[in-house]
Amino acid sequence: MPTYTAPTRDTRFIVNEMLDLASYGNLPGFENATPDMIDTVINEAGKFCAEVLAPLNQIGDEHGCTRHEDGSVTTPPGFKEAYDAYVESGWGTIAKPEEFGGQGLPHVLGFVIEEYTGTANQAFAMYPGLTNGATAAIEAAGSQEQKEMYLPKMISGEWSGTMNLTEPHCGTDLGMIRTKAEPNDDGSYSITGTKIFISAGEHDLTSNIIHLVLAKTPGAPDSSKGISLFIVPKYILDENGEPGERNGVSCGSIEKKMGIHGNATCVLNYDGAKGWMVGEENKGLAAMFIMMNAARLGVGLQGLAQAEVSYQNAVTYALDRRQGRALTGPKDTDAKADPIFVHPDVRRMLMDAKVFNEAMRALCLWGALQVDLTHKAQTQEEREEADMLIGLMTPVIKGYGTDKGYDIANNMQQVYGGHGYVREWGMEQFVRDSRIAMIYEGTNGVQAMDLCGRKLPAKGGKAIQKYFAVIDEEIASVKDDETLAPIAAVLEKALGEQKAATMWFMQNAMQNPNHLGAGAHHYMHIMGIVTLGYMWLKMAKVAKEALAGDPSDKAFYEAKLTSAAYYAERWLPDAGALRRKLEAGSENMMKLTEDAFATAA
Amino acid sequence: MPTYTAPTRDTRFIVNEMLDLASYGNLPGFENATPDMIDTVINEAGKFCAEVLAPLNQIGDEHGCTRHEDGSVTTPPGFKEAYDAYVESGWGTIAKPEEFGGQGLPHVLGFVIEEYTGTANQAFAMYPGLTNGATAAIEAAGSQEQKEMYLPKMISGEWSGTMNLTEPHCGTDLGMIRTKAEPNDDGSYSITGTKIFISAGEHDLTSNIIHLVLAKTPGAPDSSKGISLFIVPKYILDENGEPGERNGVSCGSIEKKMGIHGNATCVLNYDGAKGWMVGEENKGLAAMFIMMNAARLGVGLQGLAQAEVSYQNAVTYALDRRQGRALTGPKDTDAKADPIFVHPDVRRMLMDAKVFNEAMRALCLWGALQVDLTHKAQTQEEREEADMLIGLMTPVIKGYGTDKGYDIANNMQQVYGGHGYVREWGMEQFVRDSRIAMIYEGTNGVQAMDLCGRKLPAKGGKAIQKYFAVIDEEIASVKDDETLAPIAAVLEKALGEQKAATMWFMQNAMQNPNHLGAGAHHYMHIMGIVTLGYMWLKMAKVAKEALAGDPSDKAFYEAKLTSAAYYAERWLPDAGALRRKLEAGSENMMKLTEDAFATAA
Repeated sequence: MPTYTAPTRDTRFIVNEMLDLASYGNLPGFENATPDMIDTVINEAGKFCAEVLAPLNQIGDEHGCTRHEDGSVTTPPGFKEAYDAYVESGWGTIAKPEEFGGQGLPHVLGFVIEEYTGTANQAFAMYPGLTNGATAAIEAAGSQEQKEMYLPKMISGEWSGTMNLTEPHCGTDLGMIRTKAEPNDDGSYSITGTKIFISAGEHDLTSNIIHLVLAKTPGAPDSSKGISLFIVPKYILDENGEPGERNGVSCGSIEKKMGIHGNATCVLNYDGAKGWMVGEENKGLAAMFIMMNAARLGVGLQGLAQAEVSYQNAVTYALDRRQGRALTGPKDTDAKADPIFVHPDVRRMLMDAKVFNEAMRALCLWGALQVDLTHKAQTQEEREEADMLIGLMTPVIKGYGTDKGYDIANNMQQVYGGHGYVREWGMEQFVRDSRIAMIYEGTNGVQAMDLCGRKLPAKGGKAIQKYFAVIDEEIASVKDDETLAPIAAVLEKALGEQKAATMWFMQNAMQNPNHLGAGAHHYMHIMGIVTLGYMWLKMAKVAKEALAGDPSDKAFYEAKLTSAAYYAERWLPDAGALRRKLEAGSENMMKLTEDAFATAA
Repeated sequence: MPTYTAPTRDTRFIVNEMLDLASYGNLPGFENATPDMIDTVINEAGKFCAEVLAPLNQIGDEHGCTRHEDGSVTTPPGFKEAYDAYVESGWGTIAKPEEFGGQGLPHVLGFVIEEYTGTANQAFAMYPGLTNGATAAIEAAGSQEQKEMYLPKMISGEWSGTMNLTEPHCGTDLGMIRTKAEPNDDGSYSITGTKIFISAGEHDLTSNIIHLVLAKTPGAPDSSKGISLFIVPKYILDENGEPGERNGVSCGSIEKKMGIHGNATCVLNYDGAKGWMVGEENKGLAAMFIMMNAARLGVGLQGLAQAEVSYQNAVTYALDRRQGRALTGPKDTDAKADPIFVHPDVRRMLMDAKVFNEAMRALCLWGALQVDLTHKAQTQEEREEADMLIGLMTPVIKGYGTDKGYDIANNMQQVYGGHGYVREWGMEQFVRDSRIAMIYEGTNGVQAMDLCGRKLPAKGGKAIQKYFAVIDEEIASVKDDETLAPIAAVLEKALGEQKAATMWFMQNAMQNPNHLGAGAHHYMHIMGIVTLGYMWLKMAKVAKEALAGDPSDKAFYEAKLTSAAYYAERWLPDAGALRRKLEAGSENMMKLTEDAFATAA
């Protein structure tokens, strides 16, 4: 059975050394995040996830969720007990507002926990994960009364939440939704329609489920400008704020899926269910986007999660499994064969995983810090800058992070040879589970268009210019360092490719928007490659400084330098090839008509 | 439910126009392969696969195989009837020697049928596929008596075959096998040991199963030089050559796998089973490699197969599913949204699939022709040249073909958005089924080492020099054609990258073989990219010539030209990036020790 160990040393390196969280101690919430406190949270959360959640991962896959005839859903054996323990430990409350029972600590720490839970057991982690998204929307767009009614119990984990966007005929194009919201006399609405692909839509973990539902009021514009957002609790709250009457929402079926079997993906039927509008009429999509953006960062983290757990197990296997001899001559002459760890092609896959995981972790936590700064930085300028950077980076973290996370999970399965294909070893589950992350919360194609069509041109390209400046500055800062300058030089070249690609879009996309669409996926990958390169340069710089102090765990820092150099030589070269593809434009891509795609007899 | 249509028009284009099979009419077996005959085989085989095998694909996945308490195995519902129909139609006999009941037609045609069966139903196709491998070994290394005893009924499909290499502790490193073969008094051997991952190892489709088993005779060298090959029939033949006494081989269990559920992957226990040696003692691996090489080409074809069927379904979905509007303005103003086919990112994925599938089909059939020429070409020189080229290309077809085939299957799943992740749509099955092709018959890492460590340096690099010359010649031949020259120019640049990479290996691999291991996978991909580019140039040239004749299906040929141009701009650029990675060598890749890969707390 696969195992999981929380990479707490690496997390501490990023949080304490690279991000230097302590230096933000003057900001609200950060003052309590002392190094000791951070270490305790990281270590205890890591232990909980490894010991309680990880052992249920394979069980969840094997058993899946069961829908009963009355529409109720049972989660896999052990999930309920683990969920209770999760709530009891308060892991979900860490970064939530103190006003509603949260601990008010930095989002960075909340993200650390989200990484660990998702890595230990993605299907399980989605239950609190969806609640997070739902509370984010209520926090941002709900009335004070709604916040007081719902947030405390959602934040504590007593209740869970869901996001209801998709319908059978529409996912990306939400302007087409058909779910109706008819106003009642008492200020509530009567919600009717069918929602599909609702993760955590029905289950036995909590005493109530708070559905956030997109629907259309009578006479609303027939487009995305006519969508409103509603709170629809599974049990309507009674006068004491406790779950009372059963509402008219039920689980019609659960999907049989490729993976994440432990999470119930539901068809939810709304049959005149009582709902309450969140925020303004017809402004539902904006509120939903708040929750989508939080969710997208969480999904990016899932790309890391499956890459990390599959990597840890592949390392164990590569050191244990003996097959063949090192190309440079036998390493272990007492045995009949060397561990496959000696083979360069195995090492290539492990190194790729290592450099992706560590840089992706750095990027996700750096992103979480921007989220914190968006709300808490001292000056308006700093807040706007952070907001701009995380807005720009969200589709990259989600889209590039999950594309590559999936590649890594596949490579780690590959390390196992035939055993990787067999269920009992668990590696194929990591691949199946990680596949969804490229699809949900907006497919990665949608992410690429969000990046190139929306985020790049916004405010005259202010965000991407800031991004270039930040990386340029980092590169310039190491120009005289003989270890770091060569790495920075390769990064500079890749950044140059990104700048050229950006320029090409500026010069060509107005004249033909298909040129933008044709290159968007390439651009997202160029930016992902460059951004992880930027993370490696930051990490290498910190490691170099640490080594100057002759630390006790020298090997840890030296490995960072080797990894940074490996990343530069093995990952950054793709930026140039991607730019060439992007600059090919859309002509040949869009030239063939439908007939040319039909299979001719 | 997904559907499948055999791409017979494209097959005819490759067989009749690109390979010009008719021009080989003077070779044995080819004289019967008249254009009419070829068309009939292609069309009828296509119909059979689409109508009989494809509808069982999802059923096979859902039901899987069942092992009963007595060790017998039942295949999914409908498989037995389909297999009987397959045998009845004689599809498996097409390219087999007439001496043993085959039709003696070119291997090219056998490969067409193998593509169609594997695309319609990979799990099913593996039953006759394994038989093919087993007959190839008996044909090449068996005694005349063995051939007469086993081949006719294996070729007809009355009996099936298997390949027994892997044991629990060894797969790639066959020198470590422990299965024993003790000589009996009657010239037979008593085989004892455990084999795992035996595809089609036990089932209910045939009246006998002929296992080809690697084992060690007493006192054999304790290495790959001490392996012998044995025929071990499930039922020992009686004096009439009919299945008689049950032999001591049994199915201990069947694996639960990620995919290909319709094929029984067995643990086979040999408990003093009676076996007969094939070929010479201790020369078993050589015989096994004959069957491995045939099998590897077949697995490369599986990369194409799953890419093709997933592509066909993704095209249908992209034309049907409506979501959003074309970036250049609404296409279908009568509807609320345009088909997703209008979105460049969807078209990118479809075009990538199209250009891969068509070039990979061309490459596989070109490869099959080399197999034919190896045996049948008129001069010794031509036979040696063909043998050299197919030897060089086999790891590329297997390794690159299945790596990219898997990517394409994943992209086609991506076209479906959330529906791609749900089982009923069938797309996730294509992904799960295609994943195995990167692993079995030697992982793709093993293929890369076979290519770079064995095939490149063989005979002083004669094969790769021939390969370069062949492509150089094709490029030179279109230098004055204004349509083709630009495509050829991009191919020439990519070929230049491959030549440089080859040179780098020559200059560096001797001094440190890890440099070869570190770059082998990159090299295999460079060569795959260049080779498919070569196929596109060939196809474009033929299309251009055809267009000059003002053919009735002009659009078909024009699409080939557009596809060739798309391939050049979207696929060839990666060769340069891969070369840069390769030239980074092994230093940083191999630098970190075991400790650096451990997850530190």
